[in-house]
Amino acid sequence: MQQQLPSRLLENVVNEFGKLPGIGKKTALRLTLHMLNQPDADVGTFVTAISQMKTDIKICPVCHNITEDEGLCGICVDDRRDHSLICVVETIRELIAIENTGQYKGVYHVLGGRISPMDGIGPKNLNIDSLEERVRNSEQPVAEVILATSTTVEGDTTNFYLFRRLSPLNVPITTLARGLSVGDELEYADEITLGRSILNRVPYSSMK
Amino acid sequence: MQQQLPSRLLENVVNEFGKLPGIGKKTALRLTLHMLNQPDADVGTFVTAISQMKTDIKICPVCHNITEDEGLCGICVDDRRDHSLICVVETIRELIAIENTGQYKGVYHVLGGRISPMDGIGPKNLNIDSLEERVRNSEQPVAEVILATSTTVEGDTTNFYLFRRLSPLNVPITTLARGLSVGDELEYADEITLGRSILNRVPYSSMK
Repeated sequence: MQQQLPSRLLENVVNEFGKLPGIGKKTALRLTLHMLNQPDADVGTFVTAISQMKTDIKICPVCHNITEDEGLCGICVDDRRDHSLICVVETIRELIAIENTGQYKGVYHVLGGRISPMDGIGPKNLNIDSLEERVRNSEQPVAEVILATSTTVEGDTTNFYLFRRLSPLNVPITTLARGLSVGDELEYADEITLGRSILNRVPYSSMK
Repeated sequence: MQQQLPSRLLENVVNEFGKLPGIGKKTALRLTLHMLNQPDADVGTFVTAISQMKTDIKICPVCHNITEDEGLCGICVDDRRDHSLICVVETIRELIAIENTGQYKGVYHVLGGRISPMDGIGPKNLNIDSLEERVRNSEQPVAEVILATSTTVEGDTTNFYLFRRLSPLNVPITTLARGLSVGDELEYADEITLGRSILNRVPYSSMK
């Protein structure tokens, strides 16, 4: 049902909020009316934060992570990180997630998405050429490339494609461990995950 | 858990989105990254729509609905509406909901909230004085005031308070019908609603 709104200006904002992912018409209206009731200064802060992000955020020329400067990103310039270890992720969302685990001290390569013919996204639309070049022409030899794609159909496709593209470069390629989530009840684990966790079982002594 | 983000500019936007009602940290990050990936022009439209709404939307001096002009709102200037019928609502959200039913052709009075001592909102913080004055000094006599508050504790409190304030003015006061929702299974209706719908049963012939 198209809602009748008492003002076109209000309608514009509702439509704009409605374009955001996961925001339906009802939520869009709630957010809009919330905005309308906020002090001008708070709304100003909101609007400025978004505008500033759009103008001032740059992309790192090496790993395609975001950065606030013209040059390399905070991770690429960090000497304490292991630059011979490259973790390939789909977007910076996954980069942030891995960073938050505190378990990874290498560097990244952000693809900018995953291969998805349904959405018209092929290898050419992703930062794959730059990855290949980066591995091939690295100053210090690359010790390992970790393919950290999602375990979805598109993620697996991307994973396999990357494996084939990078194989000729003779660099060790690994992928994320798959198995039970921490805290999973065996009884409720899905069959595929449970099956794989049996096939990929690890010696007790090497478990981390 | 506080997420570590690769940029302060990004963090600002996440924080701003996180202030919106019903938007948690995870969703805020998703919305922020969505914004970051949108073309500059689209983000500009989003930001402009919000800014324009904040600067250009005015409040109707009679009913406190929103309006784009300095004067009365679209409903108050509409000659086809019954100006002797005043429906009192908490916020414009309820006004919009009632307008969308297409069942009401009178005018409104927007309180701007409901009496809620817990949130420090008393009668003085709402547009109640102006309602009383409006009913008292109306050019054409007011035929009916409909109290369309929510059926929550605060809504009922507000409802009763309004009833007491308006009673001395000798104007017919009604309130919204309460009973089963359309489509309700009796079996699953809550006891209070079901009980009231028996107490307030209506002659079959007068049912609409």
